[in-house]
Amino acid sequence: MLKRQGNLFVVSGPSGAGKGSIIKELIKQRRDIWVSVSATSRDPRDGEQEAISYFFKTKQEFRRLIDQQAFLEWAQVFRNYYGTLREPVLEALKKGVNVILEIDIQGALQIKEMYQEAIFVFILPPSLEELENRIIHRGSETPESLALRLKTALEEIAYIEKYDYFIINDDLADSTAKLDAIITAENAKVAQDVVALLEQADKGFMLG
Amino acid sequence: MLKRQGNLFVVSGPSGAGKGSIIKELIKQRRDIWVSVSATSRDPRDGEQEAISYFFKTKQEFRRLIDQQAFLEWAQVFRNYYGTLREPVLEALKKGVNVILEIDIQGALQIKEMYQEAIFVFILPPSLEELENRIIHRGSETPESLALRLKTALEEIAYIEKYDYFIINDDLADSTAKLDAIITAENAKVAQDVVALLEQADKGFMLG
Repeated sequence: MLKRQGNLFVVSGPSGAGKGSIIKELIKQRRDIWVSVSATSRDPRDGEQEAISYFFKTKQEFRRLIDQQAFLEWAQVFRNYYGTLREPVLEALKKGVNVILEIDIQGALQIKEMYQEAIFVFILPPSLEELENRIIHRGSETPESLALRLKTALEEIAYIEKYDYFIINDDLADSTAKLDAIITAENAKVAQDVVALLEQADKGFMLG
Repeated sequence: MLKRQGNLFVVSGPSGAGKGSIIKELIKQRRDIWVSVSATSRDPRDGEQEAISYFFKTKQEFRRLIDQQAFLEWAQVFRNYYGTLREPVLEALKKGVNVILEIDIQGALQIKEMYQEAIFVFILPPSLEELENRIIHRGSETPESLALRLKTALEEIAYIEKYDYFIINDDLADSTAKLDAIITAENAKVAQDVVALLEQADKGFMLG
């Protein structure tokens, strides 16, 4: 039995590109992936569950975990901390589960430092106009904040060259199929573990 | 409109692995691929058609084409030449068509020298597992003959480390789906052309 580590897929891109919808659709279709759960220092809201919505930590705990380098990435947003704990991710990977991390671009760049084997997928809106539409439809944007979000989106798109794959999200089913294909293909990559396994040839080798 | 070059997929592996069946199945399913047609100096057989079965050449023509470096790879098998002409492949790629080359391991290694952007897929024969099972569980052949069979298979398989992807062909539909996923994923790779296109971002960008 050829048992390989899972792969870590960092799915990122400007807000409004549709990362969340694609991932939600994908987990309906395949069972060999786990969507990473973030840690946060903010209080649980109604209906939120530990280890499903978030790993809830006090600010003090969170800061201690930062000191212990327990995070693959973290950020402070206003008065609260958010981050990705290293251990649950590495544990899932060790079990051969593929892990998906939905994360903003700053977080993705941190992951790139911490875990170079990760695979980076950039989700693009079909056009700036469409991005604008999607942000407007979410509501609660003033013209100023809308302009700022669009400007930020453009700046962020420049980071695409740091990524391995891109998906132009103009159709949810197509985009989901592409992310699915990327995961399947990456799991079929010839990597060190496969080569090492085949080099045990004189003892007989085990595949499949 | 984002128009990209096609990718060249070199599908290879030991004989009996099932390369041909997978490719035949795949071209029923997607239209954005062209299976490369070989050139040969042997005479056409009944029903064989120029540019569909082979590009038929005289020995003299074939040797002149070799001198002109017109081949991505070629070999002499007994008294005849076989090879892959560079031009039809590059022309298809330029049009954005993905090209599949079904080829033995020696040919694949030549392609790797000539066209480094190619993507190499190694098909592993399903009988490998059976062979291994026999060694471990049954021992129905002499240890010496089993060891020799395994050694021969493994000498070919040792080249897997030169490849990008591997597919264990124990189920035709699964294997076809994997090759399909590899093509889709490779077409979603962030490459220079995509980066250049997105750098025109300040004018608004047009994708898809």
